[in-house]
Amino acid sequence: MNSTIKHLLSFLLLLSCAAPNAAQLQKNVAPAPNGIEIPANYKSWKIIGTSHRLDKHSLRVILGNQIAINAVNTHQTNPWPEGTVLAKVVWKETQHPKWPDAIVPGAFEHAEFMIKDQKKYPNTAGWGFARWLGLDQKPYGTTADFAQECVACHAAVKDNDHVFTVPVPLP
Amino acid sequence: MNSTIKHLLSFLLLLSCAAPNAAQLQKNVAPAPNGIEIPANYKSWKIIGTSHRLDKHSLRVILGNQIAINAVNTHQTNPWPEGTVLAKVVWKETQHPKWPDAIVPGAFEHAEFMIKDQKKYPNTAGWGFARWLGLDQKPYGTTADFAQECVACHAAVKDNDHVFTVPVPLP
Repeated sequence: MNSTIKHLLSFLLLLSCAAPNAAQLQKNVAPAPNGIEIPANYKSWKIIGTSHRLDKHSLRVILGNQIAINAVNTHQTNPWPEGTVLAKVVWKETQHPKWPDAIVPGAFEHAEFMIKDQKKYPNTAGWGFARWLGLDQKPYGTTADFAQECVACHAAVKDNDHVFTVPVPLP
Repeated sequence: MNSTIKHLLSFLLLLSCAAPNAAQLQKNVAPAPNGIEIPANYKSWKIIGTSHRLDKHSLRVILGNQIAINAVNTHQTNPWPEGTVLAKVVWKETQHPKWPDAIVPGAFEHAEFMIKDQKKYPNTAGWGFARWLGLDQKPYGTTADFAQECVACHAAVKDNDHVFTVPVPLP
């Protein structure tokens, strides 16, 4: 390989933001009781939505992997395509110290995921569910069937492929 | 160039998400009255925060360009480095149709930006401010000095480099 091509390759590798920062990789995180591993680079994913849960006193952002973002861009989100991964990142609500009418994220609560794979997760509506609690990312649930709790709640949106999030409108 | 290298280059180009989708590029958007052009690919930027403005009845997400994200990752955000661009994307609040205690984004309201360049914007606290309204992205303001309104409000956080957003804690 000549040096021009080597330089070009190096440049393209630098450009590639598919490679997350080391700080963004999730290391030493135990899998969920159903075997799901935490997605390695979810914090570098693009945004699909946000919400303020008044009942839970929490703020959330919803991020998606590239398959999810492509689905949003092409308006193919009911059903979401196989391989979609949605991440919901949740913080306790707090008031902005200088602007009390602004509710902003406080302490980190948890990150939770939905992974679309109809063959792998036929008993949970075609989605693999998992959640990791707190900054130490402790897996949620004690037995492999913990995700039945997730499905029961998400049944409220079964006509929307069991997904609460509606992708935000953008120009 | 042999075909193996050509394939490798093609693959790396595909990987590179630094190139936004054509749909994400901002075309035919008029500049703000102070001459600031809308950042081309802000919708592909990573998230820094979110908020629910009770006084404005709106939900917001705050995104940053790569300089901003690097500053967040290295905890160098007061002051933010030269070249930082912060985007605040704002939607009218609405209730989730199937979960009324969840406040979620409704109609798109506007996107607004802060661009750190102390030499270029000495009269507005070292930041260039601009905002575009609605899905048709109409520039906000009528004269070049419209940004004095922005600075007056952001004076509440002058000890935080005039930035309201505190980057969210993440594992």
